[in-house]
Amino acid sequence: MIIALDSKTKNLVPWVKALREALPSDTVMVSDEVQHPNEVDIAILWNHSHDFFKRFINVKLVCSLGAGVDHILSDPLLPSQMPIVRVVSEELSGPMSIYCIGAITYFERKFDEYRIHQEKRIWNQEADPERHLRVGLMGLGQLGSDLARKLVMLGFNVCGWSKSRKEIEGVKSFVEDQLEDFLSITDVLVCMLPATKQTMSILNKSLFMKMKPGSYLINVGRGQHQVNGDILQALESGRLKGAFLDVFPVEPLPSSDPLWSHPKVVVTPHIAVVTKLGAAVPMIAENVERLSRGEALLNLIDRSSGY
Amino acid sequence: MIIALDSKTKNLVPWVKALREALPSDTVMVSDEVQHPNEVDIAILWNHSHDFFKRFINVKLVCSLGAGVDHILSDPLLPSQMPIVRVVSEELSGPMSIYCIGAITYFERKFDEYRIHQEKRIWNQEADPERHLRVGLMGLGQLGSDLARKLVMLGFNVCGWSKSRKEIEGVKSFVEDQLEDFLSITDVLVCMLPATKQTMSILNKSLFMKMKPGSYLINVGRGQHQVNGDILQALESGRLKGAFLDVFPVEPLPSSDPLWSHPKVVVTPHIAVVTKLGAAVPMIAENVERLSRGEALLNLIDRSSGY
Repeated sequence: MIIALDSKTKNLVPWVKALREALPSDTVMVSDEVQHPNEVDIAILWNHSHDFFKRFINVKLVCSLGAGVDHILSDPLLPSQMPIVRVVSEELSGPMSIYCIGAITYFERKFDEYRIHQEKRIWNQEADPERHLRVGLMGLGQLGSDLARKLVMLGFNVCGWSKSRKEIEGVKSFVEDQLEDFLSITDVLVCMLPATKQTMSILNKSLFMKMKPGSYLINVGRGQHQVNGDILQALESGRLKGAFLDVFPVEPLPSSDPLWSHPKVVVTPHIAVVTKLGAAVPMIAENVERLSRGEALLNLIDRSSGY
Repeated sequence: MIIALDSKTKNLVPWVKALREALPSDTVMVSDEVQHPNEVDIAILWNHSHDFFKRFINVKLVCSLGAGVDHILSDPLLPSQMPIVRVVSEELSGPMSIYCIGAITYFERKFDEYRIHQEKRIWNQEADPERHLRVGLMGLGQLGSDLARKLVMLGFNVCGWSKSRKEIEGVKSFVEDQLEDFLSITDVLVCMLPATKQTMSILNKSLFMKMKPGSYLINVGRGQHQVNGDILQALESGRLKGAFLDVFPVEPLPSSDPLWSHPKVVVTPHIAVVTKLGAAVPMIAENVERLSRGEALLNLIDRSSGY
């Protein structure tokens, strides 16, 4: 097999090296170095150049370098029948769950409030220093289910909203048309949705109006899910009491953006989960070998749902 | 049974009401209202007046209103053979574990660092945004064991240091004389020790020197465990990279204390766990009934160990 890698944002040198070691009988190179693009069988992509499929016309499989595939699906030149696989791994869900638990406990145990008190040297003990938040997870895929199970084990009250009903012990599951019911009992909303046409800009004014007054928002999905102006407005009106955001419609978040300095917003630079070479390479190599042997591929994307 | 409550810091009114409901055939009152102190059988105390045992000379049992008993044991007038019971409950360990997991993830996922970046509007993505911290728990009693089990389930590397060796799956257990070995592999030290003569001021310069350079400290034990000046010095020297403190030698933390404004210190006002009436009253009532029936008491303190 001949394999080409393409990315505008990632340093591909260590990836090429690791993939060559994992696939010694295949040819692995970065797209720029390919002399005969029509001989390339497999494309490994992460934010690729959008003329890629003009040159590489005989690709039989596209592999994402991470869990997301929105950067692939958004390419208008992507052949409509192209199989796409993504990386699914405990090495992704583990750090993602820890990040989310850190953000949820930050609100649950009022660390946001004590931070302001600390700045003012205020010692304010309360009779009940917990917020007793019910966590509502948007998206119960591999990442969402892992977080849901861990939160239940920690004693949190958890509900989830997803396309199809999910059976997770202790988790109240809501499906597509039950968004209002789901939002009406959620205190802290965690967005872990995939980026699809249906979920684009879902974190907007109309959704916030369906939430309980004084709720919290955590977004670790995609920046395209959120409407920054609507978040700021919801914080001003008190509909939202705080937001913990790892992703933004434009990244890096422009230094002029008011989210940076909002006292109720925590900004992290899209680091909730970073695909690690050691976790991704064996999964990609496995799919390359399955393709050569004509076997079923792992973690194949359903193009109609977009994930 | 005649029961007297005494506390210099807690509002006892709701406690008296709840205890009367739980023990309808006993007499429950606050110590000031007792007319015949020598008829009182049971004392329920939280930071009591230190002349209490001059007046109440026939007390047969002392109950703490919470998990700690240091406030009782520190009374020089406490009769040497007096049985003392404390409150042990999932309603204490649950919130304590959530608080600690919040503090541990705060350091693990570099929220301290991103907070500084946010103030400066710096978007700094890293190849590896996790610190991969090994958590070392000082104290593996009811609270420490609960936290240890939850951290293991979340995928943390956990070790513990306690008087006797503890068998907790996935937790490397160290005993008393192995403090140096325990500290040498710990990245984030969580102090959950009881306050005893042996543990007084244990979080001092000599202990920090045995830790790995660039470690983190979380104290949810007692303020008496920590030497504030030594913590500040360890932060200055880089031995400690951060501290998350809920307790202090003097509480409220004086507004002049430099810990308030230290950029690497998070201060919360002794709220990691607050004894809830609903959890404590049934446990106290159970022990009152056991005393009347001459049965073995629950959660009896071992006076020689101090907890």
